[in-house]
Amino acid sequence: MRVLGVDCGGEYTGYGVVEMHPAGKLRCLGCGAIKLSPREALPRRLSRIYTQLGAVIAEYQPDEVAIEDVFYALNVKSALKLGQVRGVAMLAAAAAGLEVSEYSPLTIKSSVVGYGRAEKHQVQLMVTRLLELPAPPEPLDASDALAIAICHLHTATTHQRQRAVGR
Amino acid sequence: MRVLGVDCGGEYTGYGVVEMHPAGKLRCLGCGAIKLSPREALPRRLSRIYTQLGAVIAEYQPDEVAIEDVFYALNVKSALKLGQVRGVAMLAAAAAGLEVSEYSPLTIKSSVVGYGRAEKHQVQLMVTRLLELPAPPEPLDASDALAIAICHLHTATTHQRQRAVGR
Repeated sequence: MRVLGVDCGGEYTGYGVVEMHPAGKLRCLGCGAIKLSPREALPRRLSRIYTQLGAVIAEYQPDEVAIEDVFYALNVKSALKLGQVRGVAMLAAAAAGLEVSEYSPLTIKSSVVGYGRAEKHQVQLMVTRLLELPAPPEPLDASDALAIAICHLHTATTHQRQRAVGR
Repeated sequence: MRVLGVDCGGEYTGYGVVEMHPAGKLRCLGCGAIKLSPREALPRRLSRIYTQLGAVIAEYQPDEVAIEDVFYALNVKSALKLGQVRGVAMLAAAAAGLEVSEYSPLTIKSSVVGYGRAEKHQVQLMVTRLLELPAPPEPLDASDALAIAICHLHTATTHQRQRAVGR
């Protein structure tokens, strides 16, 4: 199973593609971040995210998409900004016929670091170890996106195992 | 000049197309609302808005798009929801190569009713009069979208007149 994780942000939108092999081994296929210029008009910025995420999906052919749920600790202004980016990211997934799963920051951090209040650099460290990367993924938005993908793979395989034992 | 106004909402997204003739007369070319089922998955709902707004743009061929700016009086949860819809609406405009202008609710109401704190049904009444409609546009989301389009036409023609007198 191959998952695209997307970390939506006002300035950077991170993405990361992780594959889980039958034995449970995780492999990073690619990651990066789409940088948006605040000088560009908003519709053009959103258009850029949509096109670039579409290109990532076309290149890596993920089976599913996972995205951070961001109901938390934001003010109205940043929630609106983030919502715009999220809407477009979800649309890119829907355009490719992919299911989207949402995870809270707490769930993502718990799944990757084992501690829901972990800092971004702790997430980056664990992502580097779990994926056996030669260097920490940069920028932090890319490592966050990989963490979201790993969280979804952990969750999906747990569900599969539960189904397998008839629960 | 022909303008598509879009009123983004969590449940209904209204749209309205208004044309201004050289003598300043306004004409409604069409309006309506895209209803979203809360039972559908969010990416599918966003996909529906994108497709239907794209169809409206293809049918009415507006020159520009106007949208309500919603930084105001919302909580984080509804701002995020609205942001998602707005992002997709802006993307539909950008995909058609159209410029998007944003107006605050206060500006829209002032422009249409002459009073920034007007109620929705007052907006509906004035929209009906200004466009000489046989009946009030329904639902209210459609009349709000027409109001946004009228506001943009008023603003754009004021700018044109200012340019014409060299200010």
